[in-house]
Amino acid sequence: MGVETKTAVVLVSGGLDSATVLAIAREAGHQCIALSFDYGQRHRIELDAARQVAEQGGAIDHSVLTLPIGELGGSALTDLNLDVPEATEAASDEIPVTYVPARNTIFLSMALGLAETTGATDIFIGANAVDYSGYPDCRPVFIDAFERLANVATRAGVEGDGFHIHAPLIDLSKAEIIQRGVELSVDYALTISCYNPSPEGLACGVCDSCYLRAKGFEEAGITDPTLYRT
Amino acid sequence: MGVETKTAVVLVSGGLDSATVLAIAREAGHQCIALSFDYGQRHRIELDAARQVAEQGGAIDHSVLTLPIGELGGSALTDLNLDVPEATEAASDEIPVTYVPARNTIFLSMALGLAETTGATDIFIGANAVDYSGYPDCRPVFIDAFERLANVATRAGVEGDGFHIHAPLIDLSKAEIIQRGVELSVDYALTISCYNPSPEGLACGVCDSCYLRAKGFEEAGITDPTLYRT
Repeated sequence: MGVETKTAVVLVSGGLDSATVLAIAREAGHQCIALSFDYGQRHRIELDAARQVAEQGGAIDHSVLTLPIGELGGSALTDLNLDVPEATEAASDEIPVTYVPARNTIFLSMALGLAETTGATDIFIGANAVDYSGYPDCRPVFIDAFERLANVATRAGVEGDGFHIHAPLIDLSKAEIIQRGVELSVDYALTISCYNPSPEGLACGVCDSCYLRAKGFEEAGITDPTLYRT
Repeated sequence: MGVETKTAVVLVSGGLDSATVLAIAREAGHQCIALSFDYGQRHRIELDAARQVAEQGGAIDHSVLTLPIGELGGSALTDLNLDVPEATEAASDEIPVTYVPARNTIFLSMALGLAETTGATDIFIGANAVDYSGYPDCRPVFIDAFERLANVATRAGVEGDGFHIHAPLIDLSKAEIIQRGVELSVDYALTISCYNPSPEGLACGVCDSCYLRAKGFEEAGITDPTLYRT
């Protein structure tokens, strides 16, 4: 048996952040159930990355659930009529067009349902408030509000020991995330960050997400394994 | 045009409670977008009822979104391996087997996403703490926690006037709900409450939900339009 008695649900997108979160959850002694969503995102290739990340990261199971978030509309990430913007050097105070309405609320709600049915007490999410400060659902105040909700919403929250929502990257810079992941042997070559990759999974190199990823590797002083299409 | 300027998303299940909520939201001056979910529930016939309720209730639109809640398992309502229990006269303090893990959290999260993309500021849900006190996500403390979450989770909550989550039935008995609905001309013949209806939509008459519905009509002194299969 060993020391891994607590089960956690870990949201795994196929990106750099959630791959790091999976490694952090494992190092904290959790046995991890990876959870990914097929929600009509442009870059469905990230689901293949998520499968590889879950396997390489030692998850005991990997659920992929289909969600109709694209049908809600309103985001450049799911609406093919909106252009994905190119990166701007200076971070803006505005909420980006790539914001998906209520996304992390929906993702955590599904994670909560899965946690309750599997007996997991902990949920890990790669939300980050530093590089993506424009997203309201990537802030500590959101994570805290969701944890409070989880503990009144569910049988396990009311009758059991309660849920803990972990966002271990929330205050880290991209460079710090990468450094932490490298310490934990995360294979970032498996991950994809680009908002607009080629069908083969090659990154565009010009979107916000590519920009932040490249900058993070550079600041961390670590070689970027990303393959670009140009 | 006219006075109906505020848009609301109303969760409509095809049951008695949500049909009443739609009428209440309309009477309060909202233009209403009905939202239903196909989540592998046993009684999919309720989606047909939801369509009729939305139309008769004057909703300007009706979205039906497919959710993979059944894949999470753990409830007699979505898991075909669990039997739906028959009613017991005395309400129990335990959470019923028909509890669906995190259901209202997931439903409200999707409603929040739809509200944000449609510009709706209000969300109505037929949660009721009286007859279904065993469900943790049918209590006022849950509704309050979700409203707090909504207002930190979203662009509209942070930048706009905020969201209001309405659960106008939360403190009403089934009889009071029916009386209110009859005042508002709800056609309860369109609704279905049974956990285990026949393929033609005839109610079983023995499940918890049938029991509470019949008792409600009796206490309200109103003729029950439900068609039973026995």
